Order: sequence, then C-alpha cells, then structure tokens
Amino acid sequence: MKNNTFEEIAGALDRAETVLILTHVIIDGDAAGTAAALCRVLRARGKTVHIFTGEELPHNLRLLDADYFVRDRAELLDRYDLVAAVDCSDPSRFEKRKDLYDRASVHVNIDHHRTNPCYAEYNYVDADAAAAGEILYEMIQNAGWDMDVRAAEGIYTAIVTDTGEFEYSSTTAKTHRIAAELFDLGIDINEISVAIYQNERKVKLQVHSDILQNMDFLCDDRFVMAHAPAQLFEKRGAEISDSDGVIEAIRGIDTVEVACFAKEIAPDEWKLGFRSKYDIDVSAIAEEFGGGGHRKAAGGSMHGSIADVKACLYPKVEAVFREKDGRA
Amino acid sequence: MKNNTFEEIAGALDRAETVLILTHVIIDGDAAGTAAALCRVLRARGKTVHIFTGEELPHNLRLLDADYFVRDRAELLDRYDLVAAVDCSDPSRFEKRKDLYDRASVHVNIDHHRTNPCYAEYNYVDADAAAAGEILYEMIQNAGWDMDVRAAEGIYTAIVTDTGEFEYSSTTAKTHRIAAELFDLGIDINEISVAIYQNERKVKLQVHSDILQNMDFLCDDRFVMAHAPAQLFEKRGAEISDSDGVIEAIRGIDTVEVACFAKEIAPDEWKLGFRSKYDIDVSAIAEEFGGGGHRKAAGGSMHGSIADVKACLYPKVEAVFREKDGRA
Repeated sequence: MKNNTFEEIAGALDRAETVLILTHVIIDGDAAGTAAALCRVLRARGKTVHIFTGEELPHNLRLLDADYFVRDRAELLDRYDLVAAVDCSDPSRFEKRKDLYDRASVHVNIDHHRTNPCYAEYNYVDADAAAAGEILYEMIQNAGWDMDVRAAEGIYTAIVTDTGEFEYSSTTAKTHRIAAELFDLGIDINEISVAIYQNERKVKLQVHSDILQNMDFLCDDRFVMAHAPAQLFEKRGAEISDSDGVIEAIRGIDTVEVACFAKEIAPDEWKLGFRSKYDIDVSAIAEEFGGGGHRKAAGGSMHGSIADVKACLYPKVEAVFREKDGRA
Repeated sequence: MKNNTFEEIAGALDRAETVLILTHVIIDGDAAGTAAALCRVLRARGKTVHIFTGEELPHNLRLLDADYFVRDRAELLDRYDLVAAVDCSDPSRFEKRKDLYDRASVHVNIDHHRTNPCYAEYNYVDADAAAAGEILYEMIQNAGWDMDVRAAEGIYTAIVTDTGEFEYSSTTAKTHRIAAELFDLGIDINEISVAIYQNERKVKLQVHSDILQNMDFLCDDRFVMAHAPAQLFEKRGAEISDSDGVIEAIRGIDTVEVACFAKEIAPDEWKLGFRSKYDIDVSAIAEEFGGGGHRKAAGGSMHGSIADVKACLYPKVEAVFREKDGRA
C-alpha cells in the first residue's frame, strides 16, 4: 500500500510497447484530460496507445480527442503490455472493461482518491493532489519527457474541471504553479474555456429554469429544496443529467446552509442529493435515506411521491438546525 | 503618457502620511480587492488610509472590509496628502468624488484599462494585466513591503473576479504565478469562494429562472435572445441587477454564437446587451442601437415594446449571419 516512485512508474511505462489507458465510468474532465495527456506523451515516445472508455466523451470534452479514444472494442489490440488506470479509485470502476485490465501483465495506477487501495503493481496515489492530472504532470516533468501544447491542454482540462475552476478547497499553490507552466507551454485559454464552459445543451438551461421555478425554503431560508419529477425531463426532451449543477446553484443562495435536490429517476423513485456550505454534516441526513457520502456532499434515495419525500425529510432537517442552534 | 517605475510610485506613497483610495463607480471585485489590499499594506506602514466608494460594497465582497471602506463623507479627513486611484480608467468615473481627487496635491493611478490616459502625476497602466490587483501585487513585491494574508485576500479577490475564475483570455502564466504566491501567504480558498460565489440573492436565481422560461432562437440556434420586462422584476421584488449574468449563461449554449439580453429599465425603454462567442463583431450590431463596445461584448438601447425591439433586431441579426456564411 505504498506509492512507487515516479522513476519506477516511468520506467514501467517506457518498457511497454503497447499501452491501454482506462478511466472510471461516467468519465469526467480529470479522467479524460489525464488520459489524453498520457496517451499523447507516450505516443510521442513511439508507443501504441489507446484509451478505452466504453462510453461517449461528454460533449464539452470532445476537444481532447485527437484520435486517442477508441469507441469500439474491435479496434483495440488483443492484449497490451501495460494497462494504465488514471483517476480510478477501484478496479470495479472499469465497468465492462475489467477483462482488458486483467489481460495485461503490468498495471499502473495514477489517482488522487483517498480510498484507492493501491491495487496495481505500480501505484501513485496522492489524495492531496487537486486532480489526477496534477500527479501525471509531475511525473512527466520528473521523467524529463517532452510535453507539447496538446498534452498540456489535457492536463489543464483535468485540473480546471476537477477544481471547479480553481475554486474548491483541493486547490493549492502547486495547482496554480502547474497552471502557469501549462500557459508557458502555449495553451489557448479562450479555446479551452469556450469548449468546456460555453458548451451547454439548450435543454439543460431550460430544465434548470423549470426546476428553479419551485424551490422550497425552510428554517429561515437556511435550507432549500428543489425537485424534478420525471415528466419535467420528458416535457423538454431532456436527460436526467441535464439537471446536473442545480444543487450547486441552489446552495449558492446567500442564506442557504444546506441544499437538497431530488430527481425522479423511475416512477416514484427519488434520488436525493445533499450539499452543505459550512459545518452541517449532510452525510448523516443522507444515511437516513439509505445513502451516505461526505460531510459537504452526500446522497440517498426514497420511494414514494414528492409529498412523501418532503414529509419524511423536512422534520429531519428541522431537527438538524434545532440541534445546531442548541449547541451554538 | 508614460508609466512611472514601481520605485517612483512606491516612493510617492511612502512620502504621504494620509492617503485616500478611490475606485470606479459600480464597484467590482478588482476595484474593491485592490483598494482593500493597498489600504491594508499602507496602514501597516503607519499611514492613515481610507477608501471612499460613495456606494455600498456588493453583498459578495463584504469579506474585504475590515474597517477600510468609509460610507459617510463626514468620516473622511478634509484633505489627504495623496489620492490613489485604482482600476479607474478616467477621472470622470470618480462620480460625485471628483472634488476629493482634486483637493490632493499628489495623485497615483494604478490601472489595467487600455483607454487610461495616464491622468495622474504618478501612473502605472498595464493593459496586459489581468486585473489592477495584479499590478499592485507586483508593485508591493518590488517595494519589499510586507503583505499579510488579509492583503493577499484582497489581491486574490481582484484577480479571481476580473478573470472570471481564471477563465478569460486576459489570464496569463503570471496570473497563476501570483495566485500561487497568494496561497503561499495563507489565503483560505474555501472562505473566499463561499463569500464570493456561494452568496447569491434568492430572487436572483428566481429572476434568472423566469427569464430563461422564454428564450427566442434564430438562425439554427446560433442566435439566442432573452428579455426581462419591468414587471418580471416587480413580481419578484427584485432589482434589475439581479438579471446580471443571464447573458453569459445564454451565450453558454453550445450552438449559440451571438446572444442578446434585453431588460426594460423604464416603461418601453430597453437596454440591450450583446455577447459574441467567436468572431462575429457585436459592437457593429450595438451601434445600430445607439451604442457600442467591444467585438465580443457590446450594448445599446431602444424605445418601444419588446415586439418592436425584436422586429428591429432580428432582420439585422439574420443579415449578419447571412453575410458571415457568404464569406465562409
């Protein structure tokens, strides 16, 4: 359960002639950006490298794909010398791709999730890194490998998305020093910003607007709840993922300390998300709905009508605030 | 019309015993953050320093005020040895405070607006700086003055707000290097992020939601228009400024190249904002509505009903796209 050195990992990668890169399912900017950068750098070193995600890249990450991401299994090699897993806390997250992982004889694991059990032969897990891309950047620098502007774009995408544009607590001085060096390598901030952040589906804005038409406030506006019934998505021809971001938006209200967003993922089946702004531990609330998570971000679920959900949730929330105020 | 050196400006500030800091009207994060940082650093050098804005600090910038910002003219000194203007392109922007500026015998002008005519005795104008705060940071470093964590928070606020969280084209490697050094000084990114970005009025979200219920799309969704009649604000008990940010949100739609947002600021009086994502010059459209601006951000105005506005605007927009496609 100990990290290898950057030298050991770079050595393993350099000994391989064929490399397959895997990332976690529901691929995000850190996973895709880190994978793209690693692919680019290794190809420049003469290797055959593919990334296999088993899913489409999100719309706003397509700028990363310069023929790196393989869609169809038939285009993969039968086996690779090495599989590199990036931003993946556990092999179970290689959904439907575990056989590809198992077939390689050497495995590399580059990640920043605290729960990562160092499952590979070569591991580098740093929970203090703001993004897996931050670790890969340092490894490439340490190895003295060439990094061109395309690889730098991958690293930048990894960092900017996983830090919420340098806003989350995971951001450090090192994060900004790396960003500065990526600018030195020539990244075009306007091109990247437009691709990632000015690239929303029209229905996503409409769905957000519909949801925000009906917010419930409790406890002197310190708690807010919004919800999206299934027919709201149907009416707009939208996906459930078009409601992503609503919970962060409502937590952003000045008086709000705890936010909940409920979405109906099947008839009378509600998925509940919770976010806390300060010190209230929402994982405790989520546990009462069969879920869990972190102090500031957690989730649970419940069957019933939205009225049932509220009738169950609101007394619990009121108790949490009463308890907090009693302590104060 | 030439910049002074940092040494000359620091010398002038050091010779003054009393300093008044002024910023532009409709104060923003760069103006307030830079002013707060300068006030903090000069007070630590034993000087009497006030900031006079003539208006309330926006809600989400109050974290900056540790008794620096004077609300009431009666609390000001009769005269100051030196007035320092920060983030202020022109003395006309000291609305209702010009007499205070004129009464001092020495003036310092620290700014990053390209149009700044270097109106003071001591000027430092750098249009390539991402924020006035970036220039002040370099000046303080150059002078070897102490900067504590509170001053660092001011500089960080200036930079993060004026770069849209490091997203705008004005962001450079230097911007990130300065941010890294501010982290080294101990800024609390979570505290600052919550104060600035998780601090929206409830009615602002409601107003945005109301506005997004009615978007018009033209030219295969490459143009989007949203509007807010006066009664929309009245119904919610909102201010017109609660619609700030709508135009950036609708420009963020993937297919959109040009966005327009119209707000009714008096009966049948519409203020129009325009934003461009790529190469279409919206200042040319704005000029047809008695306004102007930059290629990517411009504004104009028109009298009439919203139907009149659309009837006037839409043919012009269609002509712009036809012309662009003809060239392609």
